[in-house]
Amino acid sequence: MPELRRDPITRDWVIIASERARRPSDFASHGLGREHQEADDCPFCPGHESMTPPEILAFRDPGSQRNSPGWWVRVVPNKFPALAVEGDLNKTGIGLYDRMNGVGAHEVIVETPEHGKQLAFLDDRQIEDVLWAYRARYLDLKKDPRLKYILIFRNHGRVAGASLSHPHSQLVATPMLPGNIAVEMEGYQRYEQYRDRCVYCDMVRQEVEEGKRVVIDNDFFIAFAPYASKYPFEMWIMPKRHVASFAALLAEEQTALAATLGETLRRVHACLNDPPYNFNIHTAPCDADDREDFHWHLELFPRLTIAAGFEMGTGIYINVTPPEMAAEYLREADLTAPSAVPQETGVPAKKSGD
Amino acid sequence: MPELRRDPITRDWVIIASERARRPSDFASHGLGREHQEADDCPFCPGHESMTPPEILAFRDPGSQRNSPGWWVRVVPNKFPALAVEGDLNKTGIGLYDRMNGVGAHEVIVETPEHGKQLAFLDDRQIEDVLWAYRARYLDLKKDPRLKYILIFRNHGRVAGASLSHPHSQLVATPMLPGNIAVEMEGYQRYEQYRDRCVYCDMVRQEVEEGKRVVIDNDFFIAFAPYASKYPFEMWIMPKRHVASFAALLAEEQTALAATLGETLRRVHACLNDPPYNFNIHTAPCDADDREDFHWHLELFPRLTIAAGFEMGTGIYINVTPPEMAAEYLREADLTAPSAVPQETGVPAKKSGD
Repeated sequence: MPELRRDPITRDWVIIASERARRPSDFASHGLGREHQEADDCPFCPGHESMTPPEILAFRDPGSQRNSPGWWVRVVPNKFPALAVEGDLNKTGIGLYDRMNGVGAHEVIVETPEHGKQLAFLDDRQIEDVLWAYRARYLDLKKDPRLKYILIFRNHGRVAGASLSHPHSQLVATPMLPGNIAVEMEGYQRYEQYRDRCVYCDMVRQEVEEGKRVVIDNDFFIAFAPYASKYPFEMWIMPKRHVASFAALLAEEQTALAATLGETLRRVHACLNDPPYNFNIHTAPCDADDREDFHWHLELFPRLTIAAGFEMGTGIYINVTPPEMAAEYLREADLTAPSAVPQETGVPAKKSGD
Repeated sequence: MPELRRDPITRDWVIIASERARRPSDFASHGLGREHQEADDCPFCPGHESMTPPEILAFRDPGSQRNSPGWWVRVVPNKFPALAVEGDLNKTGIGLYDRMNGVGAHEVIVETPEHGKQLAFLDDRQIEDVLWAYRARYLDLKKDPRLKYILIFRNHGRVAGASLSHPHSQLVATPMLPGNIAVEMEGYQRYEQYRDRCVYCDMVRQEVEEGKRVVIDNDFFIAFAPYASKYPFEMWIMPKRHVASFAALLAEEQTALAATLGETLRRVHACLNDPPYNFNIHTAPCDADDREDFHWHLELFPRLTIAAGFEMGTGIYINVTPPEMAAEYLREADLTAPSAVPQETGVPAKKSGD
């Protein structure tokens, strides 16, 4: 069972994954694990369903069998979960320190049966089904009273932490409120107490008015480079309607989100030649998602630079591309250019500097 | 002039380095800039002093000239500073957002004239002189009332953000208290109010008593793998004497720190085959370093794994090597083994997985 331990000063939790403990010799490749690229032994490809734990959810053709081909979105437990579904928390103190068992959930959302087709280049309708799978898993896990927060995220590319190239997202449910989310909730409340308004609603208004950091603006969402972007070409997708929980989106909003996310990913791909990236969905904690005091959004970070000693020591990031410039490049990206054409992820494109 | 911008929700500051703005094509190598390896055009090598801005401090042979060979430790302004030394803060609000000019200091401490000699393999006496240079620069910059915090840090290896291989540390002075330091100070005070003791002193006591996470224990310092390590083989070096500021160390403590740091680096090198790493010195803010309410220490992070979407979204790190196991490996590292022999950084050793 993984263990959760808390730093007594910062109060940050860490997951100690003792069962898959890695020894010095396991780290030989110096920070860059290899990404599994081949389709023939890919556990997420159709026909290989037995290589994963049994499926939790699948959108599949009528008449097809569970754990067999015929699906177009498939959710399975992570084979090497960061947190384990079974067990009690067993909170304990050890002198100065606090620990509990690593109880939670860790699932994989396989986004398409097509091994080499990136999320960016799926049909909007297929992206929407991925979002519906996110929502279905969120609503199901929310029923478990042990779980306090559910993070949905995506790693694309080796440098962004992806170990399998077949397109997939992940979901981790934690038995406590993660530190970063607590900071966001506090920031939300501080602003709300001071101004009696939602900081994110104000941000949407100001961004639309200023315009220069906005890349996409439609009826339901804006996609923009945030004013205080930590990373070059960082992008946030934010709903215009104030709603705390991702799971509270209406059907027409899901459709618009799929289109907005797809276009954002294609612009990032075209502009930066298929960069590694992470995105994660910031939504309200499980026990607060029917209240009003948050405003869910999605944060996307291309991984173009390295956080070094300064960033790790201070928490202050150095961003070498002003967000106004990033937004301009992203707006002007030519989605029909050769570099914007989808590439098979199994056949890495040649890149300058490699 | 760089710009400091603040996230209105998290209150994190970022540095927007608009003068050396990078365009999409500058990021072609996908997250891994190249590390400059060659000595013949290295700006930190003796004889190349004119390639850096004029020196601020040097420990040099009597009779040798400023900005010429004869030094053994040399401090220069960073040629591409993250923060600029000249100017006023000019704090401004832009609607929702806060900004100020990127005023501060960014210096480079060249640790040795020998291009290929890592800090780990310098004589203890030379390491001690590097520490004296840290201290001298700290005490000088502390006089500038615009500067609120001084971070001394070190990046080793490309994956840890080093762009030049010639051994050097860096110093950045910021015009505000960085978020991570504010969190530490708050954590310190919370514990102090609750228990009327220093959390770091308690930590030293508990670690020495438990023993299993301690790697080095001498009269003045312990080096240990912290209970809630975020990274595999993370190491903290902590003084046994309660003292808020790094600059308040006594001469015999500096000598012991050089020996402790050198041995820690050699053990990490031997155990993990010269991994990339960062370290930074956590010391009290400039205006509080003569008070008692902090306990300075050094934090070292080998860069063996990648922070991905989950870590970025939650702030919860997944550590695949329990600190008890890391400490055991580090204690048992054979400092005479072939892998522990110093390697010229100009001639990268062959590594499995490369």
